[in-house]
This record gives sequence, C-alpha cells and structure tokens, in this order.
Amino acid sequence: MHSTDFSDTIIALATPQGVGALATIRLSGGKSISTVNSVFKGKDLAQANSHTLHFGTIRDEDRIIDEVLISVFKGTNSFTKEESIEISCHGSMLIVKEIIKLLITKGVRLAKPGEFTQRAFLHGKFDLAQAEAVADLIHAGSEAARKTALDQMRGGFSKEIKQLRKELIHFASMIELELDFGEEDVEFANRDELKGLIEQLLAKINALISSFDAGNVIKNGVPTVIAGKPNAGKSTLLNALLKEDKAIVSEIAGTTRDTIEDEINLGGVSFRFIDTAGLRDTTDTIEAMGVKRTKEQMEKAGLILYMIDLANESVNDISKAINTLKKQAIPYLLIGNKADLCSKKQINELKGFDINFLSAKLGDGLKELEDIILEKVNAKALQTNNTVVTNLRHQQQLLLTKESLEAVIAGIDNSITNDFVAQDIRHSLHHLGEITGEISTDDLLENIFRKFCIGK
Amino acid sequence: MHSTDFSDTIIALATPQGVGALATIRLSGGKSISTVNSVFKGKDLAQANSHTLHFGTIRDEDRIIDEVLISVFKGTNSFTKEESIEISCHGSMLIVKEIIKLLITKGVRLAKPGEFTQRAFLHGKFDLAQAEAVADLIHAGSEAARKTALDQMRGGFSKEIKQLRKELIHFASMIELELDFGEEDVEFANRDELKGLIEQLLAKINALISSFDAGNVIKNGVPTVIAGKPNAGKSTLLNALLKEDKAIVSEIAGTTRDTIEDEINLGGVSFRFIDTAGLRDTTDTIEAMGVKRTKEQMEKAGLILYMIDLANESVNDISKAINTLKKQAIPYLLIGNKADLCSKKQINELKGFDINFLSAKLGDGLKELEDIILEKVNAKALQTNNTVVTNLRHQQQLLLTKESLEAVIAGIDNSITNDFVAQDIRHSLHHLGEITGEISTDDLLENIFRKFCIGK
Repeated sequence: MHSTDFSDTIIALATPQGVGALATIRLSGGKSISTVNSVFKGKDLAQANSHTLHFGTIRDEDRIIDEVLISVFKGTNSFTKEESIEISCHGSMLIVKEIIKLLITKGVRLAKPGEFTQRAFLHGKFDLAQAEAVADLIHAGSEAARKTALDQMRGGFSKEIKQLRKELIHFASMIELELDFGEEDVEFANRDELKGLIEQLLAKINALISSFDAGNVIKNGVPTVIAGKPNAGKSTLLNALLKEDKAIVSEIAGTTRDTIEDEINLGGVSFRFIDTAGLRDTTDTIEAMGVKRTKEQMEKAGLILYMIDLANESVNDISKAINTLKKQAIPYLLIGNKADLCSKKQINELKGFDINFLSAKLGDGLKELEDIILEKVNAKALQTNNTVVTNLRHQQQLLLTKESLEAVIAGIDNSITNDFVAQDIRHSLHHLGEITGEISTDDLLENIFRKFCIGK
Repeated sequence: MHSTDFSDTIIALATPQGVGALATIRLSGGKSISTVNSVFKGKDLAQANSHTLHFGTIRDEDRIIDEVLISVFKGTNSFTKEESIEISCHGSMLIVKEIIKLLITKGVRLAKPGEFTQRAFLHGKFDLAQAEAVADLIHAGSEAARKTALDQMRGGFSKEIKQLRKELIHFASMIELELDFGEEDVEFANRDELKGLIEQLLAKINALISSFDAGNVIKNGVPTVIAGKPNAGKSTLLNALLKEDKAIVSEIAGTTRDTIEDEINLGGVSFRFIDTAGLRDTTDTIEAMGVKRTKEQMEKAGLILYMIDLANESVNDISKAINTLKKQAIPYLLIGNKADLCSKKQINELKGFDINFLSAKLGDGLKELEDIILEKVNAKALQTNNTVVTNLRHQQQLLLTKESLEAVIAGIDNSITNDFVAQDIRHSLHHLGEITGEISTDDLLENIFRKFCIGK
C-alpha cells in the first residue's frame, strides 16, 4: 500500500516561480476536468476533445480571477497517463496562488514533490530510470548533461539494463529448472558455458560502472582551479575560454541570470571555476597547499590548470611547481603561457616537461588546449553514443550486481551447490531490477520522488 | 513608420526564468507554424487545427533537443491576433536557450520587450490602456491590484474614457459646424448648454483624478512604519497582522520565495513595512525625525502606526508623541496597546485622544484596527465598483484634459471666439485619446512597451 493516495486529483504550479508573461498550473487525476469546469467560464470542458485549447475566465462565483487558456487531456494520452488539465494564466504568483487556492476548495489537493512523474511511472508511462532522468533533464547544466538525461529519459539506458536482466533471467531459469530436477541429476546448464555468459555480462556491467566517472563529469561538471604565479595569465586564459560562450548566452536575453559566473562549457561539458579568493597571490596557491583551508579548497578540484609564465619562469621554477603538483592526487595540466615571447631554443629546453604551449592573449593554441582539457577529464569518450551512468543510485546497484555476479562465478569455480548459485543470480536480478523499478519498494520510490520539485 | 518590423515572426520565453517542470516559449507572426514545423518531429503542424496540442520532439538535424508539447493558434484567434505557436518544453534554461537559438537560425527573431502585447494592440485586440493593464496584472502584488488591473485589461476603464471622449467629440462637432457656418451667424451650440455639459464632463474627470491616490495605494501598496517606544508591542502587532496571511502563503508551496518579508495584505491592499534599521530604539523614531536620514526614511511612509504602551506611558508621554506626529504631513494612527491591562478609568482619561485600543497579544481589537487602517488609506472606497486610475500616465493625461476643459469653460465665460474654444476641445480630445491609444506616436508606444518584460 502506498501512503500517498494516487486516486486523488492533484494540482501544482509547473513553471518556475516568479514574474513572467505566463505561468502554467497543472492538474492530474480523474476529477481534473470536472473541477476546472466548475470554475471556468468558456467552453464546457466536459464536451471538449482531448488535446484542445480553450480560452475563458477562471471565476470564484462572480469574481473573475484571470483570463486563461485551458489545455484538455482526456483518457490516458497525457504525461501522467491520467485525465489532465493545464491552465495557462498570467505569470503572477498572486494569480497562481488564487487559482490553486480556489481549486483546492473545490476538492483537488496540492501535489507532492515529483508526484506527476511518479504517477506516470506507476501507470507504466516509463520506468524508474526514465523517471529519474526527467529531473536530470530539468537540472542539466551543459549540453552533454542534457543529451545524457534526454537519452536516459527516452529509454536508452533502461533498454541496456533490461537486456542484461533478460539474459540473467534466462540463466536463472536454467538454474532453477536444474534445482527442480536436482534429484534426478539432470544438468541443463553447462557450468562452463554459464560461467562464460556471466563473464560476458560482467564485462558489460563493468563498462557501465567505469562510465560513471565520465557520467559524473557530465552531470555535475568539473570543479577547476586555474593556478600559477601572479601575471602568468590566469585571467587572460579564463576570459579567452569564456569569450564565445558568454556571447551566445547574452544573445538570448535573460538567460544570464542563470549562468553561474566563471562557469564555462567546453565541448558540452561544464567547468566550474573554484573561487580561490584569499589565495589571489597564486604563487603560493600550490605551495601553500599544506595550509588546511587552501587544501580543502584545492581538494574539491577535479582539475588544476597550472599556468607557467614562460617569459619569466626558469626551468627550476617549473620543476618545483611540477613536484608540488605531483604530490596532489588531482589531475593537472601544465600550460606554458606567453609562448609567443619565447625563442625556439627556450621551448626546446622545456621538451622534457609535458607543457601545453599557449598564447592566451593572442589565442594561439587555445583550441588545442580545449581539446586537451576535454581529453583530460575523459569527456572525449562521452561524445560517442555509448551509454553512460550518471546516477549514483544506478552506480550503487550496478556495483551490487557486479558483486553478486562475481559470487556466481566464484560459486561455479568452487562447485558450490546450485541453490547458492541461484540465490546469487536472484540477488543480481534484484539489483538490476531496482534500477528500472521492475523491483521497487515504497521507500525507494518515496526517496527518489521527494527530491523532485513540486509540479514535476 | 515603426522602427520595429511587425511583419517578422518573433520568439521569446514566456514563463519566468529558472528551473521548473515546464517552460513555455512563444512565437507570433506569419512564419510561426512553418518555422516550428521545420524542426518538429510529430504531427505536420501545417495540417493541425487551431487550438490543438501536439506531442513530439524538437530536433536540430538528428540531435533531439527535447520532447515538447506544441500549441497551435491559426488565423487571428490568438493573443496577438497573429498566427502563433506555444512550445511547452522541460523547464531548463539550457533547453529553452537551445530551442530559441535553433529557431532563430531558422529565421525568426527574438521579440522586443512587450512586443507580443504591442502586436495585440496594433491588431486591435485591445486599446492602449488595456495593454498597459497586462503588465500591471502580472506585477499585481495584492488582491485589489489584481482586480483593478484585470478590470482595466478587460476594458472597464477604457469604456469610461471612450464614453467621455464620445461626448466631447459631439461638442467638438457642434463647435466645428458653427465655425463652418460662422459667417452666416448661425449658433448651433447654445453656449450655456455647452458649458453645463463640459462641467458635467469635468466632474467625471475630477472623480477619476481623485481616485488616483487610492489607485496608487492599490497598485504600489502603502509604505508603513510601525513606531513606538520599546516594548510597546510593535512586533506583536506585526505578527498579529501577518499571521493569517502567512499561513495561506505557506500552504501553497513555493510562493514564499516571492513574498516580501514584512509585507502584509489587509483587505486586498498591500502594506509594506519600511525597515527602520538603525532606528530600532523607536522611542526616538518620531522624536529624531529632525535627523536627516531618519527623516528620509519616514518621508517614504504613507502611514505611521504609532504604538502606545498603555500600561507604561503617561498622558504626558502620549501628548508629546502626538505633537511630534502632527508636525509630520504623514497620516498616522494611534494604537493603544495592552488595553487588557488598563482599568476603565485609565481608558476614560484617554478619551480626548483618538486612540484605537488593542490587545495585540490577545488579538482583541485587531479586526477593528484592520478596518480603521483600511479606512485611513481610503481603501474602503476601492471596494466599490467605481473605476480607479492606477497609471501615472493616465493621471497625467487626465490632468491635461482637465486643464483644457477648464480653458473651454473660461473661454465660454469670456466669450472668446469659437475657434479658440474649438482648439481647447481638440486638446482635451487629444489627451483622452492618448490614454486609450486612439491617438498615439511611436515614441509613446515605445516608451510604454519597453517597460514590459520580454515574452509578454
């Protein structure tokens, strides 16, 4: 039994809070149309066809609250697969509040977080991984995150998990059959063959598991520190990297409000620059890493871009910086700036170091550097169409699946009895099933959907 | 000629910026359907009926940007009276940006602020005063502001102005006729009769002009200061006034973000409490009014609620406070708090003062106080269905109309020639016409619509 009553008709604001030209209020459930109809002056919505729009007014008795446009969804042909209504009203929170209040007095209730998506899941519109992708899609902060979430929402990831699970179910049924006939000593499942197949499955699961690092980069971006001595060209680099992106952002009016300053998108991946305020004298940024606070800041970094002032730093300076960087477990790139001011001889002397030469000011080497940065965070691999795991819950279930499958193999190797092998296979089936929600508990669902916003 | 090309097809985000379940992108103009159709995979929108909804995907070549729901408006049956499309996509600014960028590459352009409403005005959907009310409706911060804006948007105010103008045109035509036949010495317009009619008109215009103070209260709320000695019960009063309203607000999740703290709605009017930070020791709030900074703060106030601690303040204290209050030109109310701790005798001693007795703690006298506050700011009068002027531009035009009409009367009284009288009537016609936009210039329109948000 669910603690939430999904037979209720629910209501919530679906568009963001705030002032705008329009706002959309969404209702879902069997009484959506009759409830809205009772306060709507315009077409009789009961007579309206599905997927039609109707202009009119929302009224509390004689008091007109707003002029609105009503979208009618009948039968199961809506987002939730329930009868639904969308009310497009003027984008004022006061009006939104008045309309929601009025409809609540008429018998609908405020939706819980994620309840629209949860209902869509419960009615088989999509599986759990797809439902989770709806939230990821809304919060996607980069092109790669958007693409991965959209693919997942459209079932790409689920398809792969379901295929793995189908193969496992096949094994399981063979083993279970063997158990049934156990006393007759029939061996349906050739154990070597079984082991080979489990190993193939494991390889696929391992590939998914190892995609998570990249998936995490896609979903959450890369916290990046630009370090280096004063005047090495750190700000020039940041501006050079920011330039094109900022231009596109400002062209679409208003979006700037939602762009975090000092966040750039390279190749669809977002790089969030960590504020090393108080460490502005970054000669010491690296050296002072021993200092607790600095260390904490730096430890958040997923990547350090260390700028070397080629015109002013000696080979000795560079060696020292590299030694300090190596002590950190954080990936770093050495960027030799002001390359335009160096002679060939100077550059030859530095061949032993893995330096990426650049003139941030002139923009020479910038494109190449971007590619190298993307390669460093594994983002290149993401641009293929391989499935990527971005969700920590999925990753955890995949790791548990892996554990169970390894136990299956160990069991086969050690010739343990079929019932134990069968149990491990059942465990792995369970874990894969929790990803797509073929197996789910109320707690699991509640835990997932309460993280959604109300209205989704 | 307009500097803006209204034959273009325009696009903008119509819902507020930010993250939500849904966002709506709006297009208007002759190429809305064909442009969206070129990137939409789903129903052929060219074949779709007006006022229908279509699910599908927006694609840039093979790259799917989002799953969307498209609303189709054909012919002149839309908000702008132009062919229009609304795209309901997932509520991510990244997706919104991608879709708008894609459609801009397909030949539409980003809408200017207010351009959708301006097009509706230019196509005769509504007049200028109604168009202005759209923005007022969106920004309405109280029930009274919402109602007044909605009435105005639905043409209530315009109807009254148009009626006045019609009557004036009638006079004007009589005078002009007289001018044409002037040399024949025909007097169509009896001058006393004309004067009487102009005076009737003036009375109506004066009534509108004097409604502006109330209109301003409705639209902008009343900046209010709660003053009084420490421990007089200022916070208790604020909380008592806030209580019910806050409860309603928090019931509708999320709206709190848009509630300005220390703003309350009484009888549909919003009272914004001025922060007298730095003046927390409000014994001196009133006395220290001579101090420049305090004075500036206080001068913003539209109302002072002066709390008297009946249990601890003497008649002398109260007299002193009243004297200081009287020196200000700001309306004030004396509130005698802790009335529950006073004897009848004490209360009788204070009869000479116009004190509103209250126990903020117990809530006794609160309802009465709310009524008195509303009366003080003239809000009671607003609850009738009289038309109220809320727009400063309208008020200015009404004042100019008044001036011209008074000149007409003076002209009649001083028997000046008809051509001067006719000119003054033409002036007043002009001013009234500017309110509804029957007379408009590009500058006027630009000035009005550039204050709108993009997407409206």
